[in-house]
Amino acid sequence: MRTLNVALGERAYPILIGPGLLDRAAGVTNALVAPRLAIVSNTTVAPLYFEKLAGPLRQAGVGITAIVLPDGESHKNWETLNLIFDALLKERCDRTTTIVALGGGVVGDLAGFAAASYQRGVPFIQVPTTLLAQVDSSVGGKTGINHPRGKNMVGAFWQPKLVLADTDTLGTLPARELSAGLAEVIKYGLIRDLPFLEWLEANMAELMARDAAALSYAIERSCANKAEVVAGDERETAKDGGRALLNLGHTFGHAIETGLGYGQWLHGEAVAAGTVMAAELSRRLGWLTQSDVARVRDLLARAGLPVSGPKLGADRYLDLMGHDKKVIAGKLRLVLLQQIGTAVTCGDAAATDIRAAIEDCCA
Amino acid sequence: MRTLNVALGERAYPILIGPGLLDRAAGVTNALVAPRLAIVSNTTVAPLYFEKLAGPLRQAGVGITAIVLPDGESHKNWETLNLIFDALLKERCDRTTTIVALGGGVVGDLAGFAAASYQRGVPFIQVPTTLLAQVDSSVGGKTGINHPRGKNMVGAFWQPKLVLADTDTLGTLPARELSAGLAEVIKYGLIRDLPFLEWLEANMAELMARDAAALSYAIERSCANKAEVVAGDERETAKDGGRALLNLGHTFGHAIETGLGYGQWLHGEAVAAGTVMAAELSRRLGWLTQSDVARVRDLLARAGLPVSGPKLGADRYLDLMGHDKKVIAGKLRLVLLQQIGTAVTCGDAAATDIRAAIEDCCA
Repeated sequence: MRTLNVALGERAYPILIGPGLLDRAAGVTNALVAPRLAIVSNTTVAPLYFEKLAGPLRQAGVGITAIVLPDGESHKNWETLNLIFDALLKERCDRTTTIVALGGGVVGDLAGFAAASYQRGVPFIQVPTTLLAQVDSSVGGKTGINHPRGKNMVGAFWQPKLVLADTDTLGTLPARELSAGLAEVIKYGLIRDLPFLEWLEANMAELMARDAAALSYAIERSCANKAEVVAGDERETAKDGGRALLNLGHTFGHAIETGLGYGQWLHGEAVAAGTVMAAELSRRLGWLTQSDVARVRDLLARAGLPVSGPKLGADRYLDLMGHDKKVIAGKLRLVLLQQIGTAVTCGDAAATDIRAAIEDCCA
Repeated sequence: MRTLNVALGERAYPILIGPGLLDRAAGVTNALVAPRLAIVSNTTVAPLYFEKLAGPLRQAGVGITAIVLPDGESHKNWETLNLIFDALLKERCDRTTTIVALGGGVVGDLAGFAAASYQRGVPFIQVPTTLLAQVDSSVGGKTGINHPRGKNMVGAFWQPKLVLADTDTLGTLPARELSAGLAEVIKYGLIRDLPFLEWLEANMAELMARDAAALSYAIERSCANKAEVVAGDERETAKDGGRALLNLGHTFGHAIETGLGYGQWLHGEAVAAGTVMAAELSRRLGWLTQSDVARVRDLLARAGLPVSGPKLGADRYLDLMGHDKKVIAGKLRLVLLQQIGTAVTCGDAAATDIRAAIEDCCA
């Protein structure tokens, strides 16, 4: 087991990464909180892992409330969030109840926002079971739900007390979701960690074959990158750089997700296509070469990811991107690559260049 | 104009109290935020004060989005909150937009929770126009909505950047709402400020006649009390005392509000009847005398407030009180009076005493 720390002062917390952690959760959670947990999961993950986590906790005297949600990004909305509140109130959970997210990014976002807002805030623990959640969404405190007019438009920054990433859970992950997680792993290399990018290029075959050691290393290195960025800019308020750089490919990607309807593409898939668009736009601004863009595209493709977006039309993309949270004071701010391994925020790309980059990368 | 400060470190903010402040808002808000405001109000308050506030701001070059909600506690729910999100997204408001609450406690709670959760948090300004909002709900950062199973069960602590209490707005306040505000004013005297309680007993006639000087003094002294308590216990985490003491009468009161359906009784009316129940229970525990209880009852009655609760039956009260946020680790914690002017939290009142106090105070 490896332990990383997210250095956020009084809100600091550990990330534990390794095999067999679900079974040993009682040891780590007991010390942290009152003996009452509400475990939020979904219909896919609960049959696989709920009892593995809950059984030993129950035996250790912890009261457990089970809240099982429908699976999928299309359920990341108010109606599903309200199922959590209903269950918490029905079971008379109070402010000392800790909410645990057992599942992927959608479960984490829903359970986290429920924890942030139930009785104005209760403790929260993340137990991510997908690669994407382990390397990205479970760390950093972003929670929320989608709105018909935009992704993640309603939510809160609410840091967990603990993140427990059991790498054994990746054994049951569908191939498409493994790839979606790799999109965010590759992102860390592209935006701030060139040696890691080179390692990924050398080890993509092992990762796709789910080699345990390779996956563990990729998760640790990704979380270390994320923890560093989050510690420097907890609430994404840095004027340049900071947390915003984690959104490489995300503004284009959100347009794909919203434009197709939530759940058609996985988040990581949309980010992959969006990353190619960001790379292509960076080339048009003179920062990347053709071969840099090809390098980005090749690595994403080797991770089983789409490298072009759906043909929504550039106008529709731009309209949907105008709703993105990365718009500041009416200006669209994009994360681009100054070079491979170094991202920058850019608020003054010409609309014609953005449009051309989108059209070049749609198939 | 009088300025008080809520000492919350990096979240500190001023409360401005006085006549004619709406017209001068441009001067104070410009310095604080980007020139883009979304002003949330309701169908009762907007016709009276929206243009008074928005007109000069617009002239000063501030972009204004108007969001007018239906009026009343029965609308403090997800559906109404979503009207705010819809409008913000439709108008493409971004993270630099400041949300302003112009109205009473319900508008403040809804707009405040919208500010806490829109794009994971945007700046917020309170412009309270009722006595209750000016002396209580606009200060301290509690925001939220009701759930069918309990009042204020979903929300956030989200501190405003500024509270602007224009005492001129009390001129149009219905008598019933003036009284409801006085319930919270009297509360400060009862829980921690005996000299203020004595002042209220000497000046209740002036307050009921809306004497401007008397009202101003009562608002300032109430806000000073609230600011002190909030500064010492921002998120209501103090084990004993702290913010919890502000909830004198509120656990009984919430049972009345939920039991009758939100909006039947005003919050302050329910708190008044609940305060008499808390006083009666304090007498049964040997802390107050019969004449102390009569003193509480008399002052509330002189403020035009109900001093007994609706006959819901003691069982129903207790059931509804079990959902209150003041339940900690399954135990009902009540705020009671150790003596007039001094409140305490009490976790071990016998159910028979609580039941008897309720039954004694229902008519």
